[in-house]
This record gives sequence, structure tokens and C-alpha cells, in this order.
Amino acid sequence: MTKLSSTLELAIDLLSKPSVTPEDAGCQQLMASRLEKLGFDIESLFYVDTLNMWARKGKQEPVFCFAGHTDVVPTGDVSKWTYPPFEPTIVDGMLYARGAADMKGSLAAMVVATENFVTKHPDHKGSIAFLITSDEEGPFINGTMKVIDTLEKRNEKITWCLVGEPSSTNYCGDIVKNGRRGSLTGDLKVNGVQGHVAYPHLADNPVHNVAHALFELTEIKWDEGNDYFPPTSFQVSNINGGTGAGNVIPGELDIMFNFRYSTEVTAAQLVETVETLFNKHQLNYQLDWTYNGLPFLTDTGTFIDAVSSAIKDVTGKEPVLSTSGGTSDGRFIAPTGAQVIELGPCNATIHKINESVGVQELDDLTLMYEKILERTLL
Amino acid sequence: MTKLSSTLELAIDLLSKPSVTPEDAGCQQLMASRLEKLGFDIESLFYVDTLNMWARKGKQEPVFCFAGHTDVVPTGDVSKWTYPPFEPTIVDGMLYARGAADMKGSLAAMVVATENFVTKHPDHKGSIAFLITSDEEGPFINGTMKVIDTLEKRNEKITWCLVGEPSSTNYCGDIVKNGRRGSLTGDLKVNGVQGHVAYPHLADNPVHNVAHALFELTEIKWDEGNDYFPPTSFQVSNINGGTGAGNVIPGELDIMFNFRYSTEVTAAQLVETVETLFNKHQLNYQLDWTYNGLPFLTDTGTFIDAVSSAIKDVTGKEPVLSTSGGTSDGRFIAPTGAQVIELGPCNATIHKINESVGVQELDDLTLMYEKILERTLL
Repeated sequence: MTKLSSTLELAIDLLSKPSVTPEDAGCQQLMASRLEKLGFDIESLFYVDTLNMWARKGKQEPVFCFAGHTDVVPTGDVSKWTYPPFEPTIVDGMLYARGAADMKGSLAAMVVATENFVTKHPDHKGSIAFLITSDEEGPFINGTMKVIDTLEKRNEKITWCLVGEPSSTNYCGDIVKNGRRGSLTGDLKVNGVQGHVAYPHLADNPVHNVAHALFELTEIKWDEGNDYFPPTSFQVSNINGGTGAGNVIPGELDIMFNFRYSTEVTAAQLVETVETLFNKHQLNYQLDWTYNGLPFLTDTGTFIDAVSSAIKDVTGKEPVLSTSGGTSDGRFIAPTGAQVIELGPCNATIHKINESVGVQELDDLTLMYEKILERTLL
Repeated sequence: MTKLSSTLELAIDLLSKPSVTPEDAGCQQLMASRLEKLGFDIESLFYVDTLNMWARKGKQEPVFCFAGHTDVVPTGDVSKWTYPPFEPTIVDGMLYARGAADMKGSLAAMVVATENFVTKHPDHKGSIAFLITSDEEGPFINGTMKVIDTLEKRNEKITWCLVGEPSSTNYCGDIVKNGRRGSLTGDLKVNGVQGHVAYPHLADNPVHNVAHALFELTEIKWDEGNDYFPPTSFQVSNINGGTGAGNVIPGELDIMFNFRYSTEVTAAQLVETVETLFNKHQLNYQLDWTYNGLPFLTDTGTFIDAVSSAIKDVTGKEPVLSTSGGTSDGRFIAPTGAQVIELGPCNATIHKINESVGVQELDDLTLMYEKILERTLL
């Protein structure tokens, strides 16, 4: 039998632990035991139902931080998996397990890369840190957001943050995320007066009242995007009104909508545009806004250069920079002033049955992470 | 104790029977036993779960028909009733029970008026008939609609039909319904493509696709109405789309809408206008139409004159003619060519807790019905 790499061994140990959100199932302890041997100070931060870890080696700036999560999404119907989801299995160069790509493979690569780097360069400059949560896939309230609050309160700053989310499409390192769009959700309730359809003059139909404003919202061009961001997008995700009966005019209508927005607009501008529109149409409404995350962008500079050249060393090609796709915990870290980049393995199988990652990807990723440490902390 | 009138006695007997749709609970048998004594031929017509009665005295035309229903809507929470809903109780001149106003009081008045009329005028011209169902408040499939089918197949026609629905507002006979608007329901499904809000270019949002058409539908003036009908009204009764999740673009959207339409438009015109609009907007949709009832109108003539003058005899005032309000079984009878008028007691408490009818109203109504028979069949 071929000897497994250190990264693969650690990945298998982490993947054997059934850490469905918000369970950590001992993953952070396993990582901590490795990092402690390198001289890291470990802080376990437990909020409500979520275990988090802040580990740091060194007291100086700049602070290079690996960020990630030990929790995984549920397996779904286990009988549909070819290999049991918490019994990691290697077949034809692929490692199968829930969390293999999202993102315990990355966690293993981070730890092993750090071990390699610190062993070779015990006198590196600055600090290395790990910000690990077990609630990235869930409500995300008691995870990275709370850890960042704690760090901010004691004015502990991250300079560069490498999030291990699976950013790649065809091979490890073909795409890195150097930013994310902002996400803003509106919960709208349009008030009317319920009544019988036979007596419309005694009722006030909220579906009719909002129809013009809703149409206008779908027509607005919010911006053109820019070099880094696609244009801002407005989408209605849910709309519900009516009693189910065919002869009753509904008394209220609920609409949920979401903006994914570029750095060309601010959340405040979007809120003002929407509310001005509803007021112009004299709607009777309540509107609650949820600020899911500000947009962030890590532009040209030391960090981008370090990541790009490290990837080129390993793959022979520079990565494509992208800000597309869903949110990640980077949205909570970037507002502190940290430069945030996401680099991890291919994401084709994440959240699916038979999630997997290439064995070679994990070794490549380990090498990339080590080279990024060299380019930033030497 | 004051002696009760015949109408009140019969009403109390009918109201003691808990005939919630589609149960008849012996009401029709009670009416039949009274009508048989007058020489009526009784046909019991049972369809699926619904007992109906067609009773007729005489073989000649014109045919004067009383129409009504023995079923009542459910009581709701019985503990909220001041008097038990199936134990008819007279307090301060009001008779309380489920069905008192809608419409067992009218049924009692019809039977007693017929008894009085036939006793005084055994040689009246034409025929008297009763078309009684126990499924007017329910799905209405196995009630009047099926009886009319049966009569049509044997070419048995109704000339004048008096429906005992509670038409009045402030006193018995202040308003009669001489027609009803048509009712047409559309069940629309707009098809799109489900997707993540972060990747709108991979999805197709049905809420956005229908927004313009929906707005236009709410703006259309369908007609101006006419002397007898208010303008045609379009109302959305239900709209539902979305998975509940805030980050998913819905794959489809369901909208239910209803027209109440005047005789200035036809159902076919409404259907064509709506479908042309959806096609213009290149919607991907399915649309199912339900024709709930054609509009009908009983214009000037013998029947209206008989009803108006009978009411004036009793109340001192002519009634107001109205076509407003919800549907009734008259919609199934009018298309046969019958002239249909609805005259019954005040409707303020129908379908509510503590439904009631005025004791005096029932005696007034009995007298009106008798006078209408005199004005049409003598």
C-alpha cells in the first residue's frame, strides 16, 4: 500500500468525525494538538452552541490567518452514498467523504503547510493564526462573526486572511476569490384589507397595490458592475398571499427579496431606492432589512501577488480572480480591514451525495499554502 | 305563551335538524310530507352524497318554482354561541339557530305560503314546484346543477324561479336580487428555472417574468358596468412562490385570480384578453379556467312586477333591485331560460356565530310569497 501524505492522513482523521453543523466532534481539538506542538497559543471560544478556535503563533504583525470551518452540511439519504459519508474512502485518486472538499481537506492542508513552514523557518516574521468555526454552514451567528467581535474588542487585527473555501473549478488553484458581492435581504409585508371577491370595494388588495412597484423593481438597472464585480442583482425569492380560498381577497402579502451587490453601490443606497419607490406608490407596508454581508475586494498588492505566484509555482498557471458566487465567512473578516482571499479545491461535489476531493489536489494545496506563507512571512 | 305561527313552527322543526352540508338530516322529508298533502308529486334525487328534491303540483305551464337548500354551513366553535345552534331559541323577537336566515326560515315560509295559496285557490293555473338541495353551501356539484341537468333532459322547464336566499339588508324585502354577476376563476402557473440568488444568470425568476403582466391586469378597465351591473372586477386571491429559503430563486409561481363580470363582457372575451396579455409578455405558463357561473338578469316583466307589488303590499315600499354580492344556485337555473329572483330575510348574521332571523320577518316573507303566487298563478 502506498504511504499516505501527512495532509491526506490528517484529512482522513478529520473526515471520520461526523461534525454536522453546529457539531465540531473533536476536529478543532485534533488541529489544536498539532498546532500547540508548533508553539501556537490556543483559545477555545464557545458561543451558545458553537465551538470556535483562535490559535496564534507570534505576537508581531503582520498577522497571516488561515480561516475555515470544521462543520459540514448534512449527508442527506446515507443509502444514496457509494461510500459511507463519515468513513473516508480513497478510490481512483479521489477521497470520498462529507466535507472532503468543503472544507476539511483545506484544514488538513493548512495545518501541514504550517508545520512544514515553521519547521523550515522557525524565525519567520509576523504571526500565523487560525480562525476556525463549527458554524459556517448553519446560522453563522455564533461562529466567525462572534470571534471577530472578540478580536476587535481587544484590537487584535488580521493582516492577510486565507479562507480555505473550495474556490476552484477544474483544477486546484485555477480560480481564487478575491472578493464577494454584498448580500442584502428585504422582508416586505404589504398591508391591505381582506374581503370577499364579490365586494371588492370593501377590500383593499395588497397584490394589486404592490404590482406596479414590483414591476418597477424588476426593471431597475442598479449599476453596471466594474472590473471586479458583476452588476448588482435583485431577486424575489418568496412571495405569498391569500387564504387558499378562491373567493377571498388577501389581507396581506409577504415578499422576500435579495440583493447581491457590487462595490458600485452601498446597502444604504439600495435601501433608499427601494423605500422611496414604495413610498411613491403610497404602499402601506413594513419592511425589515437584513444585512448579510458587505461586499469586499482584495485588490492588487502583496497578498494577491503572493497567492498568484505560489499557485503558478505549483500549477504553472496564474489563477483567475473572481468575486462571483455565494457568501463565505470572509464577509465577517474583511470589514476589519483584513485582506481576504479564498483558495481551496474544486467545488463540483460540495453539498452533494458522494462529495469528494482529489488526493493530488490536497498535496498541491498544501504546497500552495506553504509557498504563500513563505512569500508573506519571510 | 303566545301561539307560534305556522311558519315559525315549521322553521323551528327544520332548524332542529343538524343538516350541515351535505347532510339533509330529514328536512326534505318533512317538507315533502307537507307538500304531498297538497297534491304535490315528490321526486327524491340522490347524487353521490347529496339528497335533492323536485316536487311539483300541476302539469301545465307556467311553472312557478321555489328554490332553496336545506344544508347549512358549520357552526364553528359551539361554545361561542349564546344559544345552542341546533336548538332554535326565540328571544326578544329573534329566532336564533344555524340556518335561521340562510335559509330554513325561507323554506318554512315557502311551504306555508304554498299551503295558504293552494287552500284558497285550488284551481290556480300553471304549476307550483320546489327545487331543494342539500349542497348549496358546499361543492355544489351534486345539487341544483344535477337536478337542472335532469329536468333539462326531459325538457321540463321553470318559468319563474324564486330563490329564498337572504337578500335583505335592513328589513325583509328592502332588497331583491334580480341577477348576479358571472364568476370566472383562473389558476395560473408561471414556469421559471430554480436557482441560487448568487447565480441569477443560471435561473429564470417567474416572479420577475410575470410582474409586468400582473401590473397590466390590475390596471385594465374591463367595462363600465350597466344599469343593472357594477363594472367587471378582477381580483388576485392567491399568489405563492418560493421555497421559503432566502437564497433560492423560485422555479415556479402560482397565482389564482377571479373575475366577477357584468353582462357587458363574456367569459370568452375575458379569457382571450388575459391569454393575449400573457402571450404578449412571452410568459411560460399553464392556465386553467373554471366557469363558476354565467351572469344572469331578470329584467322588467310579469315576475319582477309581481314580486315588487307583493313586497309593497306588505312593507309599504317597493324593493331595490340589485345584482351585487356573491353567487347563488340561481346561476344554474337562469341559463335554462327561467326568470330568477332572490327574495329572503336580512343577511347580516348569515355564516356567523348566533345566526338569527326576525320572527316578524318570517311571517312577512310568508305573506309576500303567497301574494307573489297570487300575482303569477291566478
